[in-house]
This record gives sequence, structure tokens and C-alpha cells, in this order.
Amino acid sequence: MSRLCVHTITTKPLTLEQCLDAFPKRGVTGITIWRQALEGRDPATVRRRTADAGLEVVSLCRGGFFPAHSPADRQKAIDDNLLAISQAHALGAPLVVLVCGAVPGQSLTESRKQITDGIAALLPAARAAGVKLAIEPLHPMYADDRSAVNTMRQAHEICDALGSPEEVGIAVDVYHVWWDPELPEQIARAGRTGRLHAFHLCDWKTPTVDLLNDRGLMGEGCIPIREISDQVDAAGFTGHREVEIFSDKWWGIDQEEFLDRIARSYDLVYS
Amino acid sequence: MSRLCVHTITTKPLTLEQCLDAFPKRGVTGITIWRQALEGRDPATVRRRTADAGLEVVSLCRGGFFPAHSPADRQKAIDDNLLAISQAHALGAPLVVLVCGAVPGQSLTESRKQITDGIAALLPAARAAGVKLAIEPLHPMYADDRSAVNTMRQAHEICDALGSPEEVGIAVDVYHVWWDPELPEQIARAGRTGRLHAFHLCDWKTPTVDLLNDRGLMGEGCIPIREISDQVDAAGFTGHREVEIFSDKWWGIDQEEFLDRIARSYDLVYS
Repeated sequence: MSRLCVHTITTKPLTLEQCLDAFPKRGVTGITIWRQALEGRDPATVRRRTADAGLEVVSLCRGGFFPAHSPADRQKAIDDNLLAISQAHALGAPLVVLVCGAVPGQSLTESRKQITDGIAALLPAARAAGVKLAIEPLHPMYADDRSAVNTMRQAHEICDALGSPEEVGIAVDVYHVWWDPELPEQIARAGRTGRLHAFHLCDWKTPTVDLLNDRGLMGEGCIPIREISDQVDAAGFTGHREVEIFSDKWWGIDQEEFLDRIARSYDLVYS
Repeated sequence: MSRLCVHTITTKPLTLEQCLDAFPKRGVTGITIWRQALEGRDPATVRRRTADAGLEVVSLCRGGFFPAHSPADRQKAIDDNLLAISQAHALGAPLVVLVCGAVPGQSLTESRKQITDGIAALLPAARAAGVKLAIEPLHPMYADDRSAVNTMRQAHEICDALGSPEEVGIAVDVYHVWWDPELPEQIARAGRTGRLHAFHLCDWKTPTVDLLNDRGLMGEGCIPIREISDQVDAAGFTGHREVEIFSDKWWGIDQEEFLDRIARSYDLVYS
């Protein structure tokens, strides 16, 4: 359990304070904080309470959404990402995860260019704050309006285009990349290039009845989670394994019971 | 309109006979017949009536679904595909489209091997019947239980593994491949290798509320349809452009009105 992290969004019905109370009871050692869970709270206070709870802040979710039709809207996105970096710094979060964005009808190539430019604009602030950035490739079913970065290869290409700054890496989420025939080689490449910044877990259910909020608990679906996790570890990753599940079904049950199930599922994958 | 083809599944509420009556009124010149539309009908009679209606049979949908846990089930799939080939022959359909299949929990690599073996087993019958086969790469969101072939590149790899028989090619459906960064080069490759067997049209809506039956009419979504179509034509494709839309929304309206909309949308894309 020493590498188990849970995202606040996974137990969305709980407040951040309830998460800090409930997570450690299951042996969870890491927490990834979503920005909406921070609302109305002082980051420095959250940082202290998280440490008091024995939880390590693994990352802040999420920045990104760089593409937009107008330069003014793209600048607004950059400003919001700068805010995320300063929030992460205040929280003691070493990483901001980027859901990079896309605009329906704008070419994916143009969106990826805007994403690259957007990340470039964040680099000085990220460096100064000691905060890393992780490009999370999203499943191609989100290419319309959530991310024009849909494979590990594309994330690597953006890192390359930026000149491989050590701040910028990749968040590997099994849900988004499990189908990719190039996955093993792109994970190995991420290891070699120091880009393995985060690793997210959930599962793909059959049938999946909602494109956003029908993700499965590990073991509920068809993703070869342990196999991918072993590839990530073999590439040198030693960080937390983050359980990030969006699920109307799981959000609808008692969240203490859900956390028990998460701990059991995690245990089954890694036993 | 001389290249406009409509799939019988697109107007699912209509019988095959109603399709034969309704399609030509909008200038549609081709029809792709789904096997369920054939049920209880003699293929030779359908062939005659289709010709009488002035429609060309573009393809028969669909074969495939090769992967299975047991050899007996894989043989059952091959037998069903042999039946599809004989139905296509009797219909005068030059092509059977393959939705290749996948088994949740079985590795995609193993499924692709079983797909390759399954297609290999069909080659003598396809050759004898003068019927071609088209591998249709399916969107990665169908990798769990519908197809382990999710990119044009993977379809090419299967064609290559089979020794590039002229019978086996690829069905390019904009819905499944529009997001693929390699799409232009893989379309060009399909042209060079004589594998451009079919071209399917619909659109990707934002939001998409159902993984299966929420496809859009051309123009309703974000796919650069004309751009992809031009790439396909530039690669040497001169066949029909097939409108294949699964949509609870569109199936719910008067199908004569829907066909009018299809003709107008097609016209807008190509005007």
C-alpha cells in the first residue's frame, strides 16, 4: 500500500477534509488534489493538514486546456495555468497534471501547436516554483474537446519540441493508453528520457455506458493493469500509483465502502 | 451525387424494400446491405430488385468477430464469415466489410493474431467467389469487445502478414480514424498498395452521449470530412462514399426526412 494514492475526484462526494480523514484509514499514503476540492481553502493550511494526516501530496489536477480560437482566450488559459502552478507550490505539490485541451472543429495539429506554445509559456514559472508539469495523453474519444494529445508518442513529440526541459513529462493513465499498440515502447522511452511523471489507475468496463463517468474500479474491466504497471516500473518509475476514477455508479455508494473496495482492488492487482 | 451510397443500417426503421424505394429518390446510387436487412429474403431476388431500383450494391456488412477463447468458437466465426461471402456473391456485392472483433480480457495482440488467422482461412472462398474483404479499423473506444484493430497502421500490418493478397483491403471510416495523427500517410499507403476498398462517412458530435448510437450526420460534428475524403481520393479511390450512421436520434425521426437531410449534408460537404 506504500505507493497507493487516491484522487479527491475519485471520492467526489467527500470534502477535502473528509478525504484527509478517510484515505489514511485504508493505508493510502498519497493524495492528488483536484482544484475544485481546494475552493474556499487556503493552500498553506491544506498543506499542513495533509501532512498532519500522513498523506503526501502527489499532484494537483489539473491544468491545461490551452487551445482556443482567440489569442485572448489562449492567454486566459495560460494565466489559469500559472495560477495552478502557484497553487501547487503553496500546497507542496511537486506536479501539475495537464489535460491539454482541444477545440471542436479546429485541426488537431493546430491544437497541438497551441498546446506546445502554452506549455512553453509556463516553463519559467514552473522552474521557479519547483513544480513539474505532466502532459496526460487522453483517449482518442476525447479528441473533440478535451485533448488533442491522444497517444504517448504525441506527448513525447511535444516534450521534444520544447527541447526536453526536465520539468515537462507525461502522466500515464491506463484508461487512456491501454489500447495503444506502441504502449510498451513509448513507456520505455518515457523512462529513458526522465518523463515518467505520474501513473494513474482505473479500468475499462464492457459495456461502457458513458464517455466520461463510467470508469471502472481496477479489476472491473479489461485493462491489463498489472502488465502496464510492471512496464512503468521496469522503466524506472517509483512514484505513487494514483487511483483516479470518474464514476456515477461509484459516486452513488457510501464513499467509506468505496474506499474499502479501492484498497481491496489495489491489493488484488499487486498481490 | 453519383458516388453517394447509404447503408441500410443508417435508415434502420425502413425495410430493405423501403430502402430500395426511398434511396434513389434522393439521387443515391449505391447501397450497402446489412445482413439483418437480408433476413428472410432470397439474395438473388434482392440482387434483381436492387438493380431494378438503379442501385449498385457496394458492400455487405458485416463479417468479422474472429477472436474467441475456444478454437470451436473461432471456427464458428469463420463459418459465419464463409456464409457472408456466399451471401455477398449471391447479392452481387463485391465486398464484405469486417468488424474484426475482440474479447474483453484477452490481449489485443492475441486477438489480432486470431483475426489474421481468421481472414487467412477465408481467402480461398473469397477468391473463388470474387468477393473482396475490407478490414475496418474501429475507434479505440471499441477495443474492448468490437475490434482489436484500431488504426489504419494495424490494418496494414494484418494485410502485410497475410502476404498482401489483393482480396484484402481496408475500409476507412472517418468516425474511427479522424483523430489518428498518422492518417494522411496511412491513407496514402493504402492507395499505393491497392487496399482502399471502402470509404464511410458520418460525423463526431460534441458531446457524444452514447458510445454506439450517437453518430452525427455529416456537418453535425468536428471531423474534417472533406479533408479526409480528398486524401482518400488523392490516393486513387474512385468508389462510393458510404453514409453509415448509427443514431438513436436520427432513427427516431421520419426516415424520408432523414434521407433528405443526408442528401443535403452530402451535397454541402462536396459542393
